[in-house]
Formats: sequence, C-alpha cells, structure tokens
Amino acid sequence: MTRNASPDGGTPRLRADAARNRAQVLAAARSAFRELGTAAPLDEIARRAGVNIATLYRRFPDRDALIRQVVLDGFTLVVQTAHDALETAPQDPLAAIEKMLLRLVDERDMLVLPLIGGPVIDDTQALELQRRTAATLEDILAVARAQDAVRPDVTAVDLITTGALACRPLPHLPAEQATTLATRHVRIFLDGLRPDGARPLPPPPTREDLTAHLHTAEGTDREPGPTQV
Amino acid sequence: MTRNASPDGGTPRLRADAARNRAQVLAAARSAFRELGTAAPLDEIARRAGVNIATLYRRFPDRDALIRQVVLDGFTLVVQTAHDALETAPQDPLAAIEKMLLRLVDERDMLVLPLIGGPVIDDTQALELQRRTAATLEDILAVARAQDAVRPDVTAVDLITTGALACRPLPHLPAEQATTLATRHVRIFLDGLRPDGARPLPPPPTREDLTAHLHTAEGTDREPGPTQV
Repeated sequence: MTRNASPDGGTPRLRADAARNRAQVLAAARSAFRELGTAAPLDEIARRAGVNIATLYRRFPDRDALIRQVVLDGFTLVVQTAHDALETAPQDPLAAIEKMLLRLVDERDMLVLPLIGGPVIDDTQALELQRRTAATLEDILAVARAQDAVRPDVTAVDLITTGALACRPLPHLPAEQATTLATRHVRIFLDGLRPDGARPLPPPPTREDLTAHLHTAEGTDREPGPTQV
Repeated sequence: MTRNASPDGGTPRLRADAARNRAQVLAAARSAFRELGTAAPLDEIARRAGVNIATLYRRFPDRDALIRQVVLDGFTLVVQTAHDALETAPQDPLAAIEKMLLRLVDERDMLVLPLIGGPVIDDTQALELQRRTAATLEDILAVARAQDAVRPDVTAVDLITTGALACRPLPHLPAEQATTLATRHVRIFLDGLRPDGARPLPPPPTREDLTAHLHTAEGTDREPGPTQV
C-alpha cells in the first residue's frame, strides 16, 4: 500500500489530519490577528494551533496566503448567513434580518480580519463573495419593501454597516457582555427599520462610492473598509 | 525683567507657547495612537507635533501620562456633550440624544483611546468623568420617559454602547463616508428609540456589571471597555 503524505491526496486518515491541522491553524490565526494585529508572528500562530511551524508553512506558504484564507472564510460565512435570511424573509422580513445580524454577532470571531483592518483582498473570489452578499441583502430588502415591512430608504450598505459595527470586537469587554450589548443595539436598530413614522434618512453612499478608492488602478489606499464584511 | 521658562509660570508669551506645544503633542498623540496603537514611539509623536522630544517629555514625563491626558480629554468632551444634550432635552428629548450622538461622531478623533483599547485609566478624575456621563445620560432618559418620548427599556448603557459603536474609527474608510454611514446608522437607531410599537429588549447589564471586572482589586483585566466612553 502506498502512503501519500501530500496534504490533500493521502489516505483518508492523513487527509483528515491535514484538514484538522488546517482548521487549527486558521482558528489560531484569527485569535492571534484579533489580539496582536495582522503582523502577529507566524510561529506564535503555529504555537497556538499546536502544530509545527513547518506544518503551518505546508498549508500556507506565507502570511498573505493565511490572511487571504481568513478573509475568504469570513466572507463565505456572511454570504451563507445572508442566503439563509433570504430563505425566511418572505414569512417575516424584519425577523429574518434580525436573526441574520444576531447570528453574525454570535460568530463575530470568524469576521475578525475585515473588521480590524489589514490588507485588501481584492482577488476575484473575494470580490465575488462581496458582490453576492450585497445582492442578497438587496433581495431581502426588496422582499421587505414589497410587504411594506421596512422603511423605504434603508439600503444594503446600511445593513452591512450595522453588521460591521455590531460585530467588531469591543476592546476588552467580556464576550458575554459584549454580546448582550450588541444584541440590545441590534434590536433597537431593527425597531428603527419599521416604516411607520420613520423620518427620511440623509442620502446614502452607494457601494461603488464606498469601494471606488479600494479597487481603482489609481487608488493608493489598498486597505479594507467595513464594506468588505 | 525676569524670564521664567517653566511651562506654566512664564511670561504670557511663554505660557502661550507652552499651551500650544501641549495641544500639538496631544493632537499628535491621538493621531499616532489611532494609526499605530498605544505603543506608538514617543519620538514619532514629537515629530508629528513638530516639537523636540525634550519638549514632549517636559509636558508629559512618560507614555502613561500622555495616554492618561488623551483619555481624560475624551471623557471631558463626552461629559460636556451630554450636559449640553440635557439642557435641550426638555424641548425634544430624542432630538437632543440624536444631536449628542452625531456630535460625538463628528468629534470621534478626540475619543480614539477608549475606543481602540489601551490601559485602563481608573484614577479618581477618570472615574468621576465616567460617573457624571452615566448620570447625565440617565437624567436625559428620565426627561424623555416623562414625556413618553422614548421606549421605557432603553438605558444609559445602550446610549454609551451606541456612541462607542458609531464613533470607533472604521478601518480605512474615508472620513467623510464613515461619517455618512454612521449618521444614517444613528438616525435609524433613534427611530428605534421611539416608544410606539417597540418590542421589549432583553435584560440589560448594569454599568456595574460591565465595569466590575475592571475596577475590583482582584481583577486581572485592567484594560478598558467601551463603557469608558
């Protein structure tokens, strides 16, 4: 029997080990980035993951590859959460939006990178995840508007902003109390989304306004904004 | 004529120079802390302030003294803003709260330190400023409740949370667009504070719950939470 030790092509046992190592490294990277910033030493990440530094390098050849995967994992969670909300939106659009935002608050540890800053990940896959998130949120709002369940002037960007504000790690507040405060904040915000008596909002920026400085060839500011959530 | 070059005891000309230097150092410290964290090199702060490093040390003998003053300046702004809101609350409580939050968003550069984290400043003066902020916010809410202008279950802690969330520097979004997004968010939140049809909120933590881990003699976590805003 030939044993192949490559990360993804080995025996089932080796493939399971590789997948577990990879997940451990990514979880360790998220905690280290959150506490130390994106310059966190890679050997500290390996130590937190309980793996050898060589194992880390076998999964992620450099810091950029690790950062990119953490960002993509966060974007993927956001897309999935938005899609789930769209599924249930026809029954109760505001409840679907609330559940979506509170789920993101609960899973905010997955979203650490776009929220604390770091290099912009503007490859095709990341941009496609962001585009799908924005489109799905607009679909949810369209369902809500058709039922007159939401003020007419709220946009996908407002929901992205609220997710970003509520999910960003509050400095050094115990996690449970941070969740309680974020939950109350989101609940009040949701009551503010109701159409009855809502005062008109100031004009919104478009998503294109917000990302133009990030993605133009001339742009010098290559760092992410909360619009990446 | 005797010329006294001590920072605060000199001729009017020298005292004016000293006050200007001090303000320049504090503004430079805020920008450096925001961009580089509270470990920003003191010589970088002196460079940004356009003063000699010796001048910086004459005003602030060490990093802790500089951090403390930045925090106190931020807390003082918050207390003043809350007091101004209490003055106008009887005419229109929600408008007073909205104006207060939007003023803090506009002046968020003053609040950088409690919002990005850093050492807890729990000396008497800082605690007194925080106590006065919370008490003034409760006074504003009492005025609002007496007029049935606000949902009954919102607390001072919710207003502090909202100020903290809306004022924290969004990563790398241009300032003007960050202000637009924060303004829309605060406006929707304010509509959610109205009493009509508000769904009851989950139970709030008290301010004491939130700060107990910071100020007990046994506490090992000495870092600030957003409750310091």
